[in-house]
Amino acid sequence: MPHSTSKCIFLAPAPRIVSDIFDENDLLRLRAVGDVVIHEAGPVTDAIFEDSAAKAEIIIGQIDLPESRLKRATSLRAVFNVEGNFLPNIDYAYCFRQGIRVLNISPVFAEPVAEAALGMAIDLARGITRSDRHFRQGTEQYGLAANTEAFSLFRQEVGFIGLGDLGRAILPLLRPFGCRVRAYDPWLPAEYIQTLGCEASSLDEVLHGSRLIFVVAGATSQNQGFLGAKQFSSMQRGAALVLVSRAAVVDFDAMLDFAAKGHIRFATDVFPEEPLPGSHRARHTDNAILCAHQAGAMETAIKWIGKLVVADAELIARGLPPILCKVAQPETITLFRSKPISKT
Amino acid sequence: MPHSTSKCIFLAPAPRIVSDIFDENDLLRLRAVGDVVIHEAGPVTDAIFEDSAAKAEIIIGQIDLPESRLKRATSLRAVFNVEGNFLPNIDYAYCFRQGIRVLNISPVFAEPVAEAALGMAIDLARGITRSDRHFRQGTEQYGLAANTEAFSLFRQEVGFIGLGDLGRAILPLLRPFGCRVRAYDPWLPAEYIQTLGCEASSLDEVLHGSRLIFVVAGATSQNQGFLGAKQFSSMQRGAALVLVSRAAVVDFDAMLDFAAKGHIRFATDVFPEEPLPGSHRARHTDNAILCAHQAGAMETAIKWIGKLVVADAELIARGLPPILCKVAQPETITLFRSKPISKT
Amino acid sequence: MPHSTSKCIFLAPAPRIVSDIFDENDLLRLRAVGDVVIHEAGPVTDAIFEDSAAKAEIIIGQIDLPESRLKRATSLRAVFNVEGNFLPNIDYAYCFRQGIRVLNISPVFAEPVAEAALGMAIDLARGITRSDRHFRQGTEQYGLAANTEAFSLFRQEVGFIGLGDLGRAILPLLRPFGCRVRAYDPWLPAEYIQTLGCEASSLDEVLHGSRLIFVVAGATSQNQGFLGAKQFSSMQRGAALVLVSRAAVVDFDAMLDFAAKGHIRFATDVFPEEPLPGSHRARHTDNAILCAHQAGAMETAIKWIGKLVVADAELIARGLPPILCKVAQPETITLFRSKPISKT
Amino acid sequence: MPHSTSKCIFLAPAPRIVSDIFDENDLLRLRAVGDVVIHEAGPVTDAIFEDSAAKAEIIIGQIDLPESRLKRATSLRAVFNVEGNFLPNIDYAYCFRQGIRVLNISPVFAEPVAEAALGMAIDLARGITRSDRHFRQGTEQYGLAANTEAFSLFRQEVGFIGLGDLGRAILPLLRPFGCRVRAYDPWLPAEYIQTLGCEASSLDEVLHGSRLIFVVAGATSQNQGFLGAKQFSSMQRGAALVLVSRAAVVDFDAMLDFAAKGHIRFATDVFPEEPLPGSHRARHTDNAILCAHQAGAMETAIKWIGKLVVADAELIARGLPPILCKVAQPETITLFRSKPISKT
Repeated sequence: MPHSTSKCIFLAPAPRIVSDIFDENDLLRLRAVGDVVIHEAGPVTDAIFEDSAAKAEIIIGQIDLPESRLKRATSLRAVFNVEGNFLPNIDYAYCFRQGIRVLNISPVFAEPVAEAALGMAIDLARGITRSDRHFRQGTEQYGLAANTEAFSLFRQEVGFIGLGDLGRAILPLLRPFGCRVRAYDPWLPAEYIQTLGCEASSLDEVLHGSRLIFVVAGATSQNQGFLGAKQFSSMQRGAALVLVSRAAVVDFDAMLDFAAKGHIRFATDVFPEEPLPGSHRARHTDNAILCAHQAGAMETAIKWIGKLVVADAELIARGLPPILCKVAQPETITLFRSKPISKT
Repeated sequence: MPHSTSKCIFLAPAPRIVSDIFDENDLLRLRAVGDVVIHEAGPVTDAIFEDSAAKAEIIIGQIDLPESRLKRATSLRAVFNVEGNFLPNIDYAYCFRQGIRVLNISPVFAEPVAEAALGMAIDLARGITRSDRHFRQGTEQYGLAANTEAFSLFRQEVGFIGLGDLGRAILPLLRPFGCRVRAYDPWLPAEYIQTLGCEASSLDEVLHGSRLIFVVAGATSQNQGFLGAKQFSSMQRGAALVLVSRAAVVDFDAMLDFAAKGHIRFATDVFPEEPLPGSHRARHTDNAILCAHQAGAMETAIKWIGKLVVADAELIARGLPPILCKVAQPETITLFRSKPISKT
Repeated sequence: MPHSTSKCIFLAPAPRIVSDIFDENDLLRLRAVGDVVIHEAGPVTDAIFEDSAAKAEIIIGQIDLPESRLKRATSLRAVFNVEGNFLPNIDYAYCFRQGIRVLNISPVFAEPVAEAALGMAIDLARGITRSDRHFRQGTEQYGLAANTEAFSLFRQEVGFIGLGDLGRAILPLLRPFGCRVRAYDPWLPAEYIQTLGCEASSLDEVLHGSRLIFVVAGATSQNQGFLGAKQFSSMQRGAALVLVSRAAVVDFDAMLDFAAKGHIRFATDVFPEEPLPGSHRARHTDNAILCAHQAGAMETAIKWIGKLVVADAELIARGLPPILCKVAQPETITLFRSKPISKT
Repeated sequence: MPHSTSKCIFLAPAPRIVSDIFDENDLLRLRAVGDVVIHEAGPVTDAIFEDSAAKAEIIIGQIDLPESRLKRATSLRAVFNVEGNFLPNIDYAYCFRQGIRVLNISPVFAEPVAEAALGMAIDLARGITRSDRHFRQGTEQYGLAANTEAFSLFRQEVGFIGLGDLGRAILPLLRPFGCRVRAYDPWLPAEYIQTLGCEASSLDEVLHGSRLIFVVAGATSQNQGFLGAKQFSSMQRGAALVLVSRAAVVDFDAMLDFAAKGHIRFATDVFPEEPLPGSHRARHTDNAILCAHQAGAMETAIKWIGKLVVADAELIARGLPPILCKVAQPETITLFRSKPISKT
């Protein structure tokens, strides 16, 4: 596919580095789309912006793009964040008005996080980590005695809190278990939830009705800590909760309380603070499985970032809509609440 | 479907008890098949046999059935073991000649064991139990640093050693991951393995080619310890092995050696001795997940035993072939090597 | 796997010929199992039997095996019919007592028949054949007007009459349509039908509740014409019936009556007489799709016959149970009612 | 969810009528979103527009929306076409600049068209319509003789030309057949096609390599008649083609030629002219199945239109992005080539 030789691509991959996310072939493809200017050392100052980024059709990276810079970037057609979120350092309204696509690569994390979530769910239900710990303490019990609190996912009542990209990546992994799935997602119509094979439910219905709950809601400006003591007390005694999106959506202390007293069990991949303070009581709480923000951060996922960016850049250069990356939507962009995070 | 009122059923459920495996409705259905004589207290002596079992059309339990007893049981059409194995206390050849069906209820364990096996596999691949242990020791690392040895099941090279009922129960759970599956099973033709979506392979091909191996071969008189140092050394460095059938098929010490030195990682639900001695080195071996023979022994599975037995007893009473329980086959019955086990 | 050189295999493939069902590689494998004697010309007389078949361990073909011959076949371990049925020319009781496996290759037909059945079902529901006929007559209507009697399989109420091998081969093809499936099969317990994702139902429930019914019951001595006027009148007005097993299970005239008056529509692959008489009224009946016993008789299926036979022969020669062919069961063998059919 | 009482919805459903696409409950929900003004009689004149539509937040229908009208519609946030296409009577560029969503309801047709396409494919492969025609002519042949040109979809080489919404709706229906699927779609990157389980291929590779080809490419300004004699001659002798998108993408005469001489067989749901002239040679062409633009136009699909519109209107009214309807994209909107069509 020929391209106008004048196309310019500005690639400033911080907090990542080019070689982590683009393999040789990805870079070759990117260079076939346009002239690639790479900036890996230090922040993108106004001088650097003016010199290299202002004329770009495609910017790849997390650089600040206030209106003042966007106004100068008159050829700009797309901005790719090489992280899985949309940061507040871009004037999105300006981009929407001008038809500039803003994208991120969150889809690369859906599969590994879904896999980890299923593993954490089976682990909670079947007591794998607990059994191993008991063996190492010399206190294991065998067979039926080991399983007095175990349950199976087969034909289980399962709930989803949030049913965005991540929740939808978990669903196919659950399908062979024949679960009944209730889902609560205030951004999604019942008709849509039904086409996914789930029952559109209220938060209360999910909390009351589920033996196992996946919390996969992203953090927004509206849902900080919306799962607290009241919600945990609504859960069935012995029910399990898997948290793989953002710690901010739960009242972490309340969750620990309800696990400590045996009302629920939970597995989490995220924490209010990371690293978790050495003395944090979560470290010796029963009925809990702690994973170190490792659900998404797989080498294989990182290697896919470049492929998503290149493939969508190729489409955009050809005047076609992108299809692999997550595209910022005017309605939701202001609701997301993400702070720049260190490299994961 | 009416039944001859003369049908007699002898039910001696040891090592289980009737109420664990038959609910009220199951018992009602069984009594609709014939007159049920229950013997729960102590062994079935010759006197008891003569008195109650000799005239039965259906015997449910693990009682000794040498030729001498079978010859007296002239109405006998089926014997159901309420455990998942075939014990050597029956004269099977006599039964086959006479058209007496001998059955066990192993199918009830396939689902829960498959679920646990998948959970153990994801746990090994993604480091869930290990991460939790590190948190409790205060040594966890986050994100990519936590995942230096992690791998994903998606599109992974997976191997099966054995592809009997249990292996076949794992396959649908793996399907959403899009794995390439090689299977070694000397009892199964390549054509059959292919219809299951797997590649018929040699043991070597499975060992060399797989990042994750499920060992689901039953123990036979021919395969004691056939997975030993030579086989473990053939595995890829960092590959994972999930053992959920019988400890006897592996050289347990060799498996511990290869885990300790980091060549493989494994999860096992079975042990050469249960309970495992308190001082056994497995308890402090790295790269290992230990589960306490808890994969199959779920209450829900036990509750299904009665349903399988009743449904097949109904079929047999109507002159139809059983379909839910495992039916003893003349060719393989002498190959199985199971000792009576305590109630699991 | 080495084999005793003395093994003898007698192969009399009539009404088929060797080259139709065994490719070169299949024959090589068969010759590796034992010395193969092929008899393709004419019937197997007693003299031929005595000379070549009496000493065989494995007989492949439809030759008569009354007790008198079986008694002489003292090495015999298995008899493979190269058709999809069990004929009454074998003393099955003798075989069961002696542990001689009797098998047929019906599994090769399950896939092609299931595919054709789905095609016939969609065609009936969506009016494909009818539309094409109307085009050729110049009477077609378009769009919504073409669809006044059309229905979709998606989320439809579907019924099965019979849920044997063939029905079970249709189920996975229906799965993407998300149907509710009721199944009536008097040989199968409700528990089993449920594990297949269907609802165990009475014949009446299937007839009343279904918009689309698959008739896949084999013909037995007990079910001749059991679907007659009474049953067709129980069906919903406009419901569709797909018949792909045996014409004998329906009252064919009644089925035509109910189609002619528009109460039902049907598609059939089988007929009371084949070829159907030229003047038969089925040929100009509306609401009917007629297929010429072509659902199973695919070249690719015929080519699989040899593979099934060879693979199971290899297992049997190694002392293992066969797994690919259909194995005769003592309980049901006398119930099947099949007459020798000409080559299909 | 409360709404501002000032919201106004203008509903002009021509060429449909309100009661065909909205049931009572749908209308209730719509009235809960805002005040609904319905205009069913005649075109929307400027006077009517000024009176009722200019103040609407949501316009439902196909009314002309040039810049002059859009400038007056200062509250407008979304325009729903109640057909499955985007017409050239809207100033899309203006809408994109202003953040006005333009949507259509094409997703309601994906399932019924996919089902019909599968039925047409099995029919072509297995000769169902042809067999029925032969029966009615008294020329049918049975069994293998009927199947000399038949092939099965199982494990078949299948091709897609276009892999948009419609193609993606066919894929799950094909999955149980275990096909190898090549797909050609110049708008989609290879990475995306692979995530759908297909092989990204050139048009030539699809044409050469496939026994069965689904043509599901929409008509654009760039692909008129791109499947012509050259392409049909590249297809395998005896290969089958299913056309369910737009007749404009093929050279219809060439397709008829290649079917008439037996090089290919095809099934089509669309025609260059509808109704097809009574004397058109397609009506007596062999190796062809003709369906009367009936694949999508199901009552059940039409009933879904209202639900999609209402659900997305509810989201938009709440400030959330629509998710069920098809959303116009700036890059592709000018490429589509659809003329207003009469009601289907």
